[in-house]
Amino acid sequence: MSSTTFNMVSLIRKKRDQQELTTEEIQYIINGYTRDEIPDYQVSALLMAIFLNGLTDRESADLTSAMLHSGIVVDLSKVPGIKVDKHSTGGVGDKLSLILAPIVAACGVPVPMISGRGLGHSGGTLDKLESITGFNVNLDLKQYAEVLEKHNMVLIGQTEDIAPADKRMYALRDVTSTVECIPLIAGSIMSKKLAEGIDALVLDVKCGSGAFMKTEENALELAQKLVSIGESFGKQTIGYVTNMDQPLGLTVGNWLEVRESAEALQGKGPADVMEVTLMLSGTMIYLGGKANSVEEGIEMSKKSIADGSAFQKFIDIVDEQGGNSDFLRNTDTYPKSDHILKVEALQSGFVSSMDSYEIGMTAVELGAGRIRKEDTIDPTAGIEFTCKVGDRVEKGETIARIHTNKKEIIDSSVKRLQAAITFSETKPEIAPMITHRVDRSGVARL
Amino acid sequence: MSSTTFNMVSLIRKKRDQQELTTEEIQYIINGYTRDEIPDYQVSALLMAIFLNGLTDRESADLTSAMLHSGIVVDLSKVPGIKVDKHSTGGVGDKLSLILAPIVAACGVPVPMISGRGLGHSGGTLDKLESITGFNVNLDLKQYAEVLEKHNMVLIGQTEDIAPADKRMYALRDVTSTVECIPLIAGSIMSKKLAEGIDALVLDVKCGSGAFMKTEENALELAQKLVSIGESFGKQTIGYVTNMDQPLGLTVGNWLEVRESAEALQGKGPADVMEVTLMLSGTMIYLGGKANSVEEGIEMSKKSIADGSAFQKFIDIVDEQGGNSDFLRNTDTYPKSDHILKVEALQSGFVSSMDSYEIGMTAVELGAGRIRKEDTIDPTAGIEFTCKVGDRVEKGETIARIHTNKKEIIDSSVKRLQAAITFSETKPEIAPMITHRVDRSGVARL
Repeated sequence: MSSTTFNMVSLIRKKRDQQELTTEEIQYIINGYTRDEIPDYQVSALLMAIFLNGLTDRESADLTSAMLHSGIVVDLSKVPGIKVDKHSTGGVGDKLSLILAPIVAACGVPVPMISGRGLGHSGGTLDKLESITGFNVNLDLKQYAEVLEKHNMVLIGQTEDIAPADKRMYALRDVTSTVECIPLIAGSIMSKKLAEGIDALVLDVKCGSGAFMKTEENALELAQKLVSIGESFGKQTIGYVTNMDQPLGLTVGNWLEVRESAEALQGKGPADVMEVTLMLSGTMIYLGGKANSVEEGIEMSKKSIADGSAFQKFIDIVDEQGGNSDFLRNTDTYPKSDHILKVEALQSGFVSSMDSYEIGMTAVELGAGRIRKEDTIDPTAGIEFTCKVGDRVEKGETIARIHTNKKEIIDSSVKRLQAAITFSETKPEIAPMITHRVDRSGVARL
Repeated sequence: MSSTTFNMVSLIRKKRDQQELTTEEIQYIINGYTRDEIPDYQVSALLMAIFLNGLTDRESADLTSAMLHSGIVVDLSKVPGIKVDKHSTGGVGDKLSLILAPIVAACGVPVPMISGRGLGHSGGTLDKLESITGFNVNLDLKQYAEVLEKHNMVLIGQTEDIAPADKRMYALRDVTSTVECIPLIAGSIMSKKLAEGIDALVLDVKCGSGAFMKTEENALELAQKLVSIGESFGKQTIGYVTNMDQPLGLTVGNWLEVRESAEALQGKGPADVMEVTLMLSGTMIYLGGKANSVEEGIEMSKKSIADGSAFQKFIDIVDEQGGNSDFLRNTDTYPKSDHILKVEALQSGFVSSMDSYEIGMTAVELGAGRIRKEDTIDPTAGIEFTCKVGDRVEKGETIARIHTNKKEIIDSSVKRLQAAITFSETKPEIAPMITHRVDRSGVARL
């Protein structure tokens, strides 16, 4: 189809007037934008029209396809097995990738994982991996396939070749207030995931104060859009909506979370972390054809922890990618922050809420994330909690420890953290960790 | 207020989320855009958000003010009298400015008129004036005030100094499908009109197939927005919604319309043209303080035609601005198109509709308008009708004559014109020419 048969002004008008764009029209837009033939000011007007008028599932799939094919789509067909990845929409204390990838790989399912960095209050798998001294996330795509075949897993960062149209469009969305748009978020996520060479995908859509989706309605809408897109590409896709009203586990911060992950792989993971991890890993093993059901996948996951094979897989991949695995075996040998301070409860009572957005931002302030793009991350910085929502604590009792090398930030961080935690006289009801499962047959409340 | 206190991304978000922008925020946006500090891609995202979410009356007034003050606001305070202009939203065969300006000026009210060119299917006053050989529409703003003071009227084109922000924004709207947006249209019109140095304004909001507003609802909404903005600037503003379902009068084309206007000023105007002209001129004379009511203004208008003073005013202004007024006194001496051809009725019956958009586009094809920006206009080209909606005609009877110098276009133009006119067996109801009056006290159906 010749690009001269379309006119960007009339395509913007179509979406503005709530009409559906055709496959060819969406291809024309993305190709034209990638080739600099369509200017930013037309794409930004279209993005705002999409933000306000939405995209149908078919349009979302076509947008994803066009962005996916703007770059390299990795061919992993020479690597045996059904390749399964997991994607999380991002949260606070979300170290699940580090735990589940070794579990799933140890159970025989290849996990080709291309991860991102922290964004705002939420952490990123790449930043966590890089806290393991020496770990190299910058493999080229040839090495990526080789490591995957050798270990059933590989952990790298996004290369320039993956979905360049998404990269460009994301930068434009960022400066035109068109970020928080479910079909655009879904297209951005899926164009990058589908480029990895996966056969199936499990999605962890976080919902709550520490997630980008604050409401169940939005989280479900995103989950459904993601599943719809994945299935339209012939990739079996299962999504879960999971709780992000309090941080996952007991740690927030890069090395602290790696340490907690290593402990989890040795059978000492916090209950909330393990509940979500096992559901996701069980589903991945099922989708990878190594279990006949998710439940069987969960049992296999537990066994891989119990027999040490999952932790060994983590050690192997860290060794393979240049990291110092001694730190995983002896986590106490890892360098510590200059300042580790107790945070005391300001009153007695039951912990009734832990504002994970505020907690995430406090961790960023302590050095665990970037306030400006050019900031460097302090791998040791972060927060360790000694309580979860529902726990009884007494006034003056330690509820957390902050780790930082920034002395000047300590006082304000302690106060911010204390303000983020509220108490009640009666024991609060604990929200379920996993609320919905979404697959091609629909939505199920769990 | 320092410009650094605002952030364009959050201002786009506000409008995206249906919040109201403050006066200072709107000033920041328009000033920043005019000074190249805010890029096109952010303004186009904002324009789409405005298109879909609207602007309040207060926001529209602030937008108008910011665009108005991006350029020169003419000070006509040294010219005695209450200066009144008229603005039409554009139609087919709309030559009313050429008739009413001399009438109102002859009745003692100064008319400072800055006009535009044809756009799409609709004609433009400037193009019509320039069909009078020698007529100079390019006076500078000093000459503009001098001619106004001398003759109570002046007819010029927009200069670069008038509302440059509107010019820039309009160009961006044109390429981002954000043209047909009532608050943006209103802001664009009013920023240019208020820059003229007027004290009061009469608006002719055209409604129907040949207008930019196709429905009564849209036309009324625009009229109300225009009146609201005018009044917010302390300028008494009265708007009328008038019919544009068939062309105004019997001619479409630049010289043909000047000729019809000269005839109208000599008492030989078609009924529809005179009905709307007199309502507008009567209102202008009333607003100009020379009549105690619109009705009295209408009577004065009629008298200025009957006693020859209005036509003489037209002659005087044409002489003053370099035009050859002999052509107005002896219209038969004007050059004629090479090809003047009769268009026959394809059937007998009552004329039931004349699609004025199609008729306007046919006139453009014949040479009366521009298909591309760089096209030159043929002043002699156009269409003369010998029927109006409601007239009885017989098959084969002449219903129109086309004038053109483009031989190759004749056949298709005749067919297009014939297709634009429909017939019925019974006499159709004739739509009223003026349906609503809008002023600061509200809307009145007429």
